[in-house]
Amino acid sequence: MEAAIAIEKGVKNAFSNAKTVLLPVADGGEGTLETLVSATNGEKVYEKVNGPLGKEVNAHFGVLGDRSTCVIEMAVASGLNLIEEDERNPMLTTTYGTGELIKEALDKGYRNFVLAIGGSATNDGGAGMLQALGMQLIDKEGKEIGYGGGELGKIHYISTENFDKRIKESTFLIASDVENPFVGEKGASHVFGPQKGATDEMVEILDQNLLHFANHVEKNTGVRLHDMPGAGAAGGIGGAFLAFFPSNMKRGIEVVLEYASFDEALNGADLVITGEGKVDFQTAYGKTPMGVAQAAQRKGVPTIILAGAVGENIRNLYKNGVVGIFSIINQPMSLENAMKEAENLLEKSVEQICRTYFWNGFQ
Amino acid sequence: MEAAIAIEKGVKNAFSNAKTVLLPVADGGEGTLETLVSATNGEKVYEKVNGPLGKEVNAHFGVLGDRSTCVIEMAVASGLNLIEEDERNPMLTTTYGTGELIKEALDKGYRNFVLAIGGSATNDGGAGMLQALGMQLIDKEGKEIGYGGGELGKIHYISTENFDKRIKESTFLIASDVENPFVGEKGASHVFGPQKGATDEMVEILDQNLLHFANHVEKNTGVRLHDMPGAGAAGGIGGAFLAFFPSNMKRGIEVVLEYASFDEALNGADLVITGEGKVDFQTAYGKTPMGVAQAAQRKGVPTIILAGAVGENIRNLYKNGVVGIFSIINQPMSLENAMKEAENLLEKSVEQICRTYFWNGFQ
Repeated sequence: MEAAIAIEKGVKNAFSNAKTVLLPVADGGEGTLETLVSATNGEKVYEKVNGPLGKEVNAHFGVLGDRSTCVIEMAVASGLNLIEEDERNPMLTTTYGTGELIKEALDKGYRNFVLAIGGSATNDGGAGMLQALGMQLIDKEGKEIGYGGGELGKIHYISTENFDKRIKESTFLIASDVENPFVGEKGASHVFGPQKGATDEMVEILDQNLLHFANHVEKNTGVRLHDMPGAGAAGGIGGAFLAFFPSNMKRGIEVVLEYASFDEALNGADLVITGEGKVDFQTAYGKTPMGVAQAAQRKGVPTIILAGAVGENIRNLYKNGVVGIFSIINQPMSLENAMKEAENLLEKSVEQICRTYFWNGFQ
Repeated sequence: MEAAIAIEKGVKNAFSNAKTVLLPVADGGEGTLETLVSATNGEKVYEKVNGPLGKEVNAHFGVLGDRSTCVIEMAVASGLNLIEEDERNPMLTTTYGTGELIKEALDKGYRNFVLAIGGSATNDGGAGMLQALGMQLIDKEGKEIGYGGGELGKIHYISTENFDKRIKESTFLIASDVENPFVGEKGASHVFGPQKGATDEMVEILDQNLLHFANHVEKNTGVRLHDMPGAGAAGGIGGAFLAFFPSNMKRGIEVVLEYASFDEALNGADLVITGEGKVDFQTAYGKTPMGVAQAAQRKGVPTIILAGAVGENIRNLYKNGVVGIFSIINQPMSLENAMKEAENLLEKSVEQICRTYFWNGFQ
């Protein structure tokens, strides 16, 4: 919102009677809940749940302005940011708290869910979440297994008997850009395990355990998560949704734009101005600015992309009605100063860009 | 020219069939001769002359493409860049070499002169130049005074008897942005003396000497240089021209644009792209980009200004058809890297700016 306000100032500096619509967006990761609640004038509902290592955390879910859609942000209950760096251990971290949030929302009568699953601390294939919702993961001795990715290898039998029946009456839209499968070299453990604290040895165990879990899921549901694109999202919780929930997976930015009613905001717009910290050739592959540009282009509105740093080979961004890609930096300076001055730099660069873009229309 | 080529690349990257005209400009200071000779397909004529401290230097004057106009660049014969920093001493430095260049050009038949007087090492009121052209500055003992600003106090009598008669048959267009008077607090010695190596004491002597000279000039010609705007340019050589030469003074950028036929280059142009190392609120006061923008506006062509650094309070540049002012910096970086990457950065930023400016015309 601060960035949007700075951009608005720049626009007004160029054309004081310009009409502006400010719409902060997120990519489906952390901040998505905040963004959607704010964009729709929704509210937050606070709940205490078990954090990634079992310690109680003060979490919340969001209810959008329609008073019917619930936004669950996984990072709020099972996020990497909830534990110290030296506590990171995906053998132990669980998605249990995310399941508790869903249960609380179901209890309050909500049946329409948007899940933002970025920023997780877990690699448990969503097992903890399933357990919080009544699913039973039973070991050889007939006991429930414990929490964390390290426990999945013990699964002998999955019982869905007590799995929350209200799940089937609900819809779950999973906001995720991750296309990785559940297991293997490109699976959750290998690709995302290390950043969650897994050592090389842990990665091997975690991958084996997810494979073991996937075999049981297949036996139980017929759904083969192993190579399914997106099943590896957020430590495999993507797979749990795909196997056991009436769910649908969409790119994060698309979900955000849809629920923030971006299309309506575009009505009558001459130009969209969006941005990201760094823009480079990767930006064309599904990052926020491209999602914004694509949605704008569908409504015939061109887009300007701003960035702190503009990298190489950005011409693949020229599709989707992207007019130009500008750095907001206005002289040689350090990254630190650029961060400190970001709002000022945004305002100034937008003034020049708007003058230039609209010059022939307004002179 | 390197900058112009980089800008052209950026334009062509945006619109491969764009028509471009490359016209390097200068502000009347160092580089002016080179620029005008190159823009008009003229030539350089090399002459050995006495440098600012009497040591022979390999100087040159320019003959423009019209084969009639001579460009004399003072810095080439009497410039600060011709002497070591510890040799700077405007008590001693002389404009004699500049006079020699004029004499050589007169000998070769030229009568139409453009003088670029930036970058001088001197504070002699143009006395050395006058002496090289036959004027006699006589002391109390009837002898010619020596060279340098320190000698002017000895003048007892000025004899124009042997002053080159061909001067009167010629025209001299002085390219200068300096509006300082000959003497006083805002005069040549006080304002420009220190950067030429004058100590506080020297500044006082130099100013007194210029005053003494100005009194003699007034006695001799009736021209009162003391408070005359522009007479203080280039250590007072401006005054010498104004008093003894059929001369006219114009802002450097205007002279350059006129002789480089900028107006003709503007025919059919949609946009002018110019630039300077740093652009700030001072840029509006006669610096190169504003001169370019003014000339372009007279022909109805808008201007984009590029800079390495864009400073504060630049809105006073919005007059004169300036569309936008952009830094070429595309991410946080050091000045050193910005200089090293300047051509690349120019090319990239121009591509984005052209896309943005022409978007509605070319899509």
